[in-house]
Amino acid sequence: MASCNETELAALQAVFANSLSVNISSLLCSKFEYIDTKFSATTLAVDNSFLLFSAYLVFAMQLGFAMLCAGSVRAKNTMNIMLTNVLDAAIGSLSYYMFGFAFAFGREEDGNNGFIGRYFFGLKKVPDAAQGIDYSFFMFQWAFAIAAAGITSGSIAERTQFYSYLIYSSFLTGFVYPVVSHWVWSGDGWLNTAYKDPLFGSGVIDFAGSGVVHMVGGIAGLWGAYIEGPRIGRFDANGRPAQLKGHSATLVVLGTFLLWFGWYGFNPGSYVKILTPYDSFKGSWTGVGRAAVTTTLAGSTAGVTTLFGKRILTGHWNVTDVCNGVLGGFAAITAGCAVVEPWAAIICGFVAAWVLMGFNKLAEKLKYDDPLEAAQLHGGCGAWGLIFVGLFANENYVKQSIAGSPPYGLFLGGGGKLLAAQIIDILVITGFVSATMGPLFYLLHKMNLLRISAEDELHGLDLTRHGGFAYYHSDDVKDGSLGHEMQGKPATVHTV
Amino acid sequence: MASCNETELAALQAVFANSLSVNISSLLCSKFEYIDTKFSATTLAVDNSFLLFSAYLVFAMQLGFAMLCAGSVRAKNTMNIMLTNVLDAAIGSLSYYMFGFAFAFGREEDGNNGFIGRYFFGLKKVPDAAQGIDYSFFMFQWAFAIAAAGITSGSIAERTQFYSYLIYSSFLTGFVYPVVSHWVWSGDGWLNTAYKDPLFGSGVIDFAGSGVVHMVGGIAGLWGAYIEGPRIGRFDANGRPAQLKGHSATLVVLGTFLLWFGWYGFNPGSYVKILTPYDSFKGSWTGVGRAAVTTTLAGSTAGVTTLFGKRILTGHWNVTDVCNGVLGGFAAITAGCAVVEPWAAIICGFVAAWVLMGFNKLAEKLKYDDPLEAAQLHGGCGAWGLIFVGLFANENYVKQSIAGSPPYGLFLGGGGKLLAAQIIDILVITGFVSATMGPLFYLLHKMNLLRISAEDELHGLDLTRHGGFAYYHSDDVKDGSLGHEMQGKPATVHTV
Amino acid sequence: MASCNETELAALQAVFANSLSVNISSLLCSKFEYIDTKFSATTLAVDNSFLLFSAYLVFAMQLGFAMLCAGSVRAKNTMNIMLTNVLDAAIGSLSYYMFGFAFAFGREEDGNNGFIGRYFFGLKKVPDAAQGIDYSFFMFQWAFAIAAAGITSGSIAERTQFYSYLIYSSFLTGFVYPVVSHWVWSGDGWLNTAYKDPLFGSGVIDFAGSGVVHMVGGIAGLWGAYIEGPRIGRFDANGRPAQLKGHSATLVVLGTFLLWFGWYGFNPGSYVKILTPYDSFKGSWTGVGRAAVTTTLAGSTAGVTTLFGKRILTGHWNVTDVCNGVLGGFAAITAGCAVVEPWAAIICGFVAAWVLMGFNKLAEKLKYDDPLEAAQLHGGCGAWGLIFVGLFANENYVKQSIAGSPPYGLFLGGGGKLLAAQIIDILVITGFVSATMGPLFYLLHKMNLLRISAEDELHGLDLTRHGGFAYYHSDDVKDGSLGHEMQGKPATVHTV
Repeated sequence: MASCNETELAALQAVFANSLSVNISSLLCSKFEYIDTKFSATTLAVDNSFLLFSAYLVFAMQLGFAMLCAGSVRAKNTMNIMLTNVLDAAIGSLSYYMFGFAFAFGREEDGNNGFIGRYFFGLKKVPDAAQGIDYSFFMFQWAFAIAAAGITSGSIAERTQFYSYLIYSSFLTGFVYPVVSHWVWSGDGWLNTAYKDPLFGSGVIDFAGSGVVHMVGGIAGLWGAYIEGPRIGRFDANGRPAQLKGHSATLVVLGTFLLWFGWYGFNPGSYVKILTPYDSFKGSWTGVGRAAVTTTLAGSTAGVTTLFGKRILTGHWNVTDVCNGVLGGFAAITAGCAVVEPWAAIICGFVAAWVLMGFNKLAEKLKYDDPLEAAQLHGGCGAWGLIFVGLFANENYVKQSIAGSPPYGLFLGGGGKLLAAQIIDILVITGFVSATMGPLFYLLHKMNLLRISAEDELHGLDLTRHGGFAYYHSDDVKDGSLGHEMQGKPATVHTV
Repeated sequence: MASCNETELAALQAVFANSLSVNISSLLCSKFEYIDTKFSATTLAVDNSFLLFSAYLVFAMQLGFAMLCAGSVRAKNTMNIMLTNVLDAAIGSLSYYMFGFAFAFGREEDGNNGFIGRYFFGLKKVPDAAQGIDYSFFMFQWAFAIAAAGITSGSIAERTQFYSYLIYSSFLTGFVYPVVSHWVWSGDGWLNTAYKDPLFGSGVIDFAGSGVVHMVGGIAGLWGAYIEGPRIGRFDANGRPAQLKGHSATLVVLGTFLLWFGWYGFNPGSYVKILTPYDSFKGSWTGVGRAAVTTTLAGSTAGVTTLFGKRILTGHWNVTDVCNGVLGGFAAITAGCAVVEPWAAIICGFVAAWVLMGFNKLAEKLKYDDPLEAAQLHGGCGAWGLIFVGLFANENYVKQSIAGSPPYGLFLGGGGKLLAAQIIDILVITGFVSATMGPLFYLLHKMNLLRISAEDELHGLDLTRHGGFAYYHSDDVKDGSLGHEMQGKPATVHTV
Repeated sequence: MASCNETELAALQAVFANSLSVNISSLLCSKFEYIDTKFSATTLAVDNSFLLFSAYLVFAMQLGFAMLCAGSVRAKNTMNIMLTNVLDAAIGSLSYYMFGFAFAFGREEDGNNGFIGRYFFGLKKVPDAAQGIDYSFFMFQWAFAIAAAGITSGSIAERTQFYSYLIYSSFLTGFVYPVVSHWVWSGDGWLNTAYKDPLFGSGVIDFAGSGVVHMVGGIAGLWGAYIEGPRIGRFDANGRPAQLKGHSATLVVLGTFLLWFGWYGFNPGSYVKILTPYDSFKGSWTGVGRAAVTTTLAGSTAGVTTLFGKRILTGHWNVTDVCNGVLGGFAAITAGCAVVEPWAAIICGFVAAWVLMGFNKLAEKLKYDDPLEAAQLHGGCGAWGLIFVGLFANENYVKQSIAGSPPYGLFLGGGGKLLAAQIIDILVITGFVSATMGPLFYLLHKMNLLRISAEDELHGLDLTRHGGFAYYHSDDVKDGSLGHEMQGKPATVHTV
């Protein structure tokens, strides 16, 4: 602080006792105080700008998910999957505003609750200067919350009733996700490194949410897809897998690049402030930039590894596999982006690619059908990302970027406590999401609300539930017809 | 200011009269002056960064419009509509640079003109430090100007001659839109809250342009579409409506999400500065963040309302209707995003959805055909947004965010003056746009320059005016042909 | 600096010798020192935020390239071209991290090398406060590096073996591009304006890379496409050109708008810092904003010029030609965006449109086939952009934006030295890229690694090399089949 404290004021007053028309000591002190006010405003403007634009990038990931999902399903289900993506954002806004944010970050002044927050319902009392929470923080966390539901909708695509979607989605964004994010990210969460009595004296390092976002979405999807069973035709009578190819690789690439773009909000943006902790080394621009670099390298390595790995395994250079590889690398580095060195990010991405290929192989063996590979990718690579932090977290970067004083990675000499905490985190997230979403999906299944009829599935959700197809084409040039269709009677349907 | 004023300097000189090698008083004062210079530079850098990146987001809306329009028309007219979107940006750059910006914000030093600006032609004398106008402000306003023309081109899609487009588009971005934006947004505009003698002692609050941008574009489109009449086949011989479905719901979703993304530049960015007015409460980060939150909630609520509303009305869960609902919510909250509370934004969005559904019903009854629902959406929801401000504007937020000292919303105890001013604004915009664009469209119609021939319409604009179709596909795999077409002779055409 | 220097400290000590409990002179000096530290942190946060978000925008151009390329090729080669675009980013990350960045900007403390850098391999010693290099600078330059390879892949699309792509792409991003960027952009590069003995006493002004990025990518593509020869069917038996239309104009427009959006990171972002040099006139917000304006005007003018030019030449209003025109204007203004006035940018764009149309005409005459017009656009317009700077660079803007003290444009009275340096730059880039990439492509050609077989070309790269097509559609609604395909056996293929 530039402002004068009491001792300084007394000293100035002693020296300038005889000053005349203007009180010199208060003149100087008021100037320094003004300077502090000005710095404080500047800091808030810079930090909030950084956080808001990061939030906008994270929001762009929702568009990325929509395009990735659309391209990965068959044309006849495109409207359905896109509608769920739009509603993730729209319904998520309302539920996260009303209670999700409160459950996640609502820290009461008079007491803590390690399990769930209970404050800020309906954004009441926001902004809260004492806790440093402004609207920008809500925007950033909202964009994260809607991402989790997006992951799950991929796993159960092409065969799920729309009512089911509305139910599980609200429950996931409104309760399950906020609770997990409270545990790990709220200062009073029981898994947080700054918790009064952190787990194993360490707490969990999940910087941007390999566990909190990706595993939560992936495990939820796993239960949904498992309980529904595979799509018709995914495995033949003899149990041999058949590919149900998505209808547009172009949309897959578009979605992947948009997700890549948005991940620069997701990971580096998770520093939340780029200027504030300027005089310690916490937060700040170098860490933000490094998080962008580690993210880039992990995703790139995973993509290149998948390219060559799949070439060896299948004989083809496959662009959609490379896209999924890139995303697997991102999901893995998300936990550690701020606390590992660039070279370690390359290891992270390399392993993530094999984790994804391995889980995909396993899923096929177990006749598990996930149209977006979402459980394998977000669940599997997310879990690997948490372990990776326990192995490779760098001592200095942990000190600079993480509250509390957790230890660092096992392979860098930091001992096994952090790794132990990370493994507990994986188990606890898996357990909690299974215990909440599993029964919900099972109940919907028992009530015949989960899966659509076989007939609907063969005709596609778009025609039966959404009043038409995503693509309309009439060969009006050739046949001279009017080039329009009457409501509900699609003539010829072609794909994007 | 940290700098010393004359009294302070004199006081310091009195105390430090006997100082030796260095003049202590000037030493201290020059330090404080340096600090002020540095703060001033920092503020300019932060504010200009904020404004430029906001402008880039608003520009991304042009891409959103292009995709939304492309997906909403039939494949045979895709090239045509996309060309108009590209030209909105390209021609708009030139006309707004040459005179549009001058008409809108060109405030002469020696005098004011409430109707139109007359300065800064061709960006002469920019930057202007006295008026606080730098290139970033031009970029931001240019991105707004091209949005208005984009709205109109949606209303008259699929049946308008390209020459007509060039004419009305230049007139709209070069004159009509700048004049309205001068009235409401320039400090010397006669509808501005900071005008010397504001309307009803209040002036109009249209923070980001529900009226200035959305109503202007919508009303212009209304006249164009009304004068042209509906597309062939839109209403059958008995006057019953038939849907002329757009050719790609995927593009509609892509466009909607891009518009959503860009709206975070449009609405919060309209604070223009995020740091400057740090010591009063005008502008600043909390308001910017709140505008992002209200925007999100209004759009989301409108989308969810449309989902269930349309389900009840039509029996389908329709993704393109939900997309339009979301956009209607955005168009409505645009006027009030900075001055209403989050809960009020939910009301705003809820009503906007019904306004849009109602106007769509009415349009069908009146046999009005607007392929993008642009007049209903931007015109109708934009007008509702202006009324909404008159009802729900919050006292504190108005003080913090709006120049001058207008009253606040009727329902919050602020009386009816603001509401009256808002209603006048709606009438005046409707009148002015009708009086300028109506005759223009009518003249083009009378000169046979407005609508294409029935034959052209049946074959599609792309083939007849743009040298081919948007999509080319040859079944070269199956028939072994070379997979290419000679110029101008498309073989088989398929849609995206 | 607000901090006290030695003389100031001595003076304060002399006056306040008799102070009591607290040392007044050190009290004041420590406050000023604190203020400097705080300003320094603020500046770093603001500049790094600006650079990182600019880098993210530049990265979005990679998505733009992918969509532009996808739309410009035939459906059967879509997967192939998109895979190269994804790999530009992924492989480029690894090679630029390992040595590309070191070759380009690795300035050793103890010595300079005008030809190539040799420091920062694997980001070792980054951040380097002395040289002002942080991770954000790497991110920005990486995003530039991958753009160059993207340009080249367009020239040789639809007929190149994937192995060749992997080889030339690594060589281009890992060596050729970094060396050229070292020459022009590193302070110790022999073409830099701040070089100890700059070329013609001037050095080259290529602010954001019309030469360094666009010409390098374009010339490399020229050699690749020339050595491979045209695609089958591009010229008929009599040598008459036939158009091999790209399969989706929608994707072309999407790509163009994304590139436009990203160019706001590319050009204005090349100031690298928006606050730092606040008290001289170098860098800073006004220049950044002006670069955004000149970029907008040049691209817009080129687009409009192409619209009318092509209308006259071909009789059609062509959206894809307009898109290419816009991009040609951007490629041209890139060199001079920071140092020319807005009106000059209009001239730049007008000429760029004719340069592109002229080179396209010439290419057709010479039977040169470049599916993306990449050599003509990036090579041709890029070269024009360098000449344009030599003619129109504004004296003040050069002083404010460019290190060293180069002269300004010939037409504005600055003499011919800058123009001479710019021409040498064109020749040197052309020569160096030809001398490295030419032999590489020739060697690949001689080893039969460059071009695919005629059979593969007719069937499309996607089927033969990438295991299937980009688009899948089965008429499951009509024929009641299961709507899925077995691996590797596409039923019917339709395009986006």
